[in-house]
Amino acid sequence: MAKSAEVSPFAPKTPATLPVVEGVRFAACEAGIRYKGRKDLMVAVLDEGTVAAGVLTQSKTCSAPVLWCRESLKRGTARALVVNSGNANAFTGRKGREAVTMTAEFAAKAVGCRTDEVYLASTGVIGEPLEASKFAHLLAGLATSARPDAGTEAAQAILTTDTFPKIVSRKAKLGGVDVTIAGFCKGAGMIAPDMATMLCFIFTDAAIAHAPLQRLVAEGANQSFNCMTIDGDTSTSDTCLLFATGTAQKRGQKPVSDASDPALKEFKAQLDELMRELAILVAKDGEGLSKFVTIDVEGAESDKAARVIGLAIANSPLVKTAIAGEDPNWGRIVMAVGKSGEAADRDRLSIWFGERIVAKDGERAPEYDEPTMAAYMKNPEISIRVDVGIGQGRARIWTCDLTHGYISVNADYRS
Amino acid sequence: MAKSAEVSPFAPKTPATLPVVEGVRFAACEAGIRYKGRKDLMVAVLDEGTVAAGVLTQSKTCSAPVLWCRESLKRGTARALVVNSGNANAFTGRKGREAVTMTAEFAAKAVGCRTDEVYLASTGVIGEPLEASKFAHLLAGLATSARPDAGTEAAQAILTTDTFPKIVSRKAKLGGVDVTIAGFCKGAGMIAPDMATMLCFIFTDAAIAHAPLQRLVAEGANQSFNCMTIDGDTSTSDTCLLFATGTAQKRGQKPVSDASDPALKEFKAQLDELMRELAILVAKDGEGLSKFVTIDVEGAESDKAARVIGLAIANSPLVKTAIAGEDPNWGRIVMAVGKSGEAADRDRLSIWFGERIVAKDGERAPEYDEPTMAAYMKNPEISIRVDVGIGQGRARIWTCDLTHGYISVNADYRS
Repeated sequence: MAKSAEVSPFAPKTPATLPVVEGVRFAACEAGIRYKGRKDLMVAVLDEGTVAAGVLTQSKTCSAPVLWCRESLKRGTARALVVNSGNANAFTGRKGREAVTMTAEFAAKAVGCRTDEVYLASTGVIGEPLEASKFAHLLAGLATSARPDAGTEAAQAILTTDTFPKIVSRKAKLGGVDVTIAGFCKGAGMIAPDMATMLCFIFTDAAIAHAPLQRLVAEGANQSFNCMTIDGDTSTSDTCLLFATGTAQKRGQKPVSDASDPALKEFKAQLDELMRELAILVAKDGEGLSKFVTIDVEGAESDKAARVIGLAIANSPLVKTAIAGEDPNWGRIVMAVGKSGEAADRDRLSIWFGERIVAKDGERAPEYDEPTMAAYMKNPEISIRVDVGIGQGRARIWTCDLTHGYISVNADYRS
Repeated sequence: MAKSAEVSPFAPKTPATLPVVEGVRFAACEAGIRYKGRKDLMVAVLDEGTVAAGVLTQSKTCSAPVLWCRESLKRGTARALVVNSGNANAFTGRKGREAVTMTAEFAAKAVGCRTDEVYLASTGVIGEPLEASKFAHLLAGLATSARPDAGTEAAQAILTTDTFPKIVSRKAKLGGVDVTIAGFCKGAGMIAPDMATMLCFIFTDAAIAHAPLQRLVAEGANQSFNCMTIDGDTSTSDTCLLFATGTAQKRGQKPVSDASDPALKEFKAQLDELMRELAILVAKDGEGLSKFVTIDVEGAESDKAARVIGLAIANSPLVKTAIAGEDPNWGRIVMAVGKSGEAADRDRLSIWFGERIVAKDGERAPEYDEPTMAAYMKNPEISIRVDVGIGQGRARIWTCDLTHGYISVNADYRS
């Protein structure tokens, strides 16, 4: 597999680590599925009583593990999560289903649970059969050796073309009790709504029932991963799971069974922020990126229209290459707004790069100054604001530029 | 302006020339609008009685010349076409409208017609005011010097990042009389349905009324330019105009006033083919391309669904970069089918590269052979066929790969 030569310029200076979440133990190992000399298989063992919720790719050609998770989520209890990198087990037909079943059976036996309490995810090459027989026997050992403080290793085992692990954690008060929320994800390419990240796993010791947990993860995804795009492509494997072990009950947290329970307010705020941060980390590790881009759209017909316009800008190859070329080419923003299909009025459109207005009232702004804007475009983080000028809808989208690095990574992924 | 270093590998070996079309005279000159040392302004003078039809960009932020043509097409008669390259006169506000009006007034005076019989198109940079006062005075001389055999020069004057002119002509019998159809277009980047080419102008000496002419050009565009994509971006300036001078009447052609007139059959077939050929030439000159790609989708729920699936494949950066890397990565085709949003069944999907099947029944085909497929991917023209397996809908889409060349051209367009 081709790898970017370098680590993303936006990688955290100090690598983040996953804090302990009561009721979760992790283990990872080198299963040799595709990569050599790195860990590519991880297990999370979850205490009895853990509740699961999640959102999965909308792809019509989704992978075998996605179909498996969709079934397990109906019951919504969880005891184990098994994730491998190197092979997505997607478009692998009957063999893919067999691999999923075998993995779940070995995991269930190792942990001592039902198979539908096992959650599975795979990432990597599509269409190659995943030979579960080559690693399923490792699951018993992983389950035995799993430790509460091994989450950081697990976060590393799920990476593919990522250049750094993405780990974010938060604390929140829930019914007066301190709870932890900690998650990690992998992204880099084939990243677009809906879903936006290929794989994301979040763990909390809070006690929250399935229905409110499902609403929390869905709402969180909508304002984070679904507002982020690298290349407009949608994976067959996108998976975002949230596990609540409920161990905070022992410390007096009253279980939450209703999504509208006001006790959830702070927890939801922290979870939303954690998911936004993870989404931003994914955009900041877009394949080959040189710049991180935030696009704010306001004045659209509705929030939904603003999101469509923002994504049209974020996914436009011409906008993305202009940013890569440090060219303040706001004309391409106009083009992208126009092609979005959403209501727009050329003569009311205003565009800012950073703090400076570049276009308004249907033409270049009088205060536009090319050298000033060219200097702005040299920043590693670019902010674009568009006022459509016709309504109150707003959205924020995160993306990156399109560079020679993206071509290099993706023109040589399989070989 | 940055230019591709080289001519597209798919440029015709022998440059095409535009044959004489009775009733049309051309002239081109160096107006110095943006480029130095090349012609950038062209005029076509059309005989009295010329009928015009056309399709224009759906962009909500379309250019001033597009708005002008939309008005002129309501009346549907034509005496002059004025096209400049180097500046798109898009997002130029009041100044843009003034430039359009001034150009039309000078052209009308030069030709001796009403201003709404003048058609205008501009291509090039967006957002820079087009100073019509710098070239409008040239129109009188151009109109005077226009010649029937100068169409090839006109076709060259409209190019921007194109690496070769795109000219196609056909003969047809219409009511027993020989008529000529000849057209040229420019494309290269910012090319996607709907519309697909930035500028296309087609001329015929046939006598056809406005309503059937409009239907001919619209149906022709649907099966040509709207089935072709370079990068999924839609221009603010896309314009396709068809002018019928009607001079074939002098040779006995009975004017056609009804779109269902069976006399149109051969003419329509030839026009459709001419437009398809022009569309293919545009795809074969995609910015930075190394490969020309034809995508056939069959077995979709409907023809429309097939077109959406084909465009999802054609616009996927991951598919396009895999082709650039000569990687038979059919897994990315599966991904693109899945993200199209159209009905698909993973387990009934089949995919061919060239004549060879690579995937069927939801997994890699047993006959798949990596070295054979890798050798196929080295061809300059790649054919991909997808059978969705659920219906009768079909579509053919043309595109090109996504290379370092595209990044180079577009990361440095303005500077």
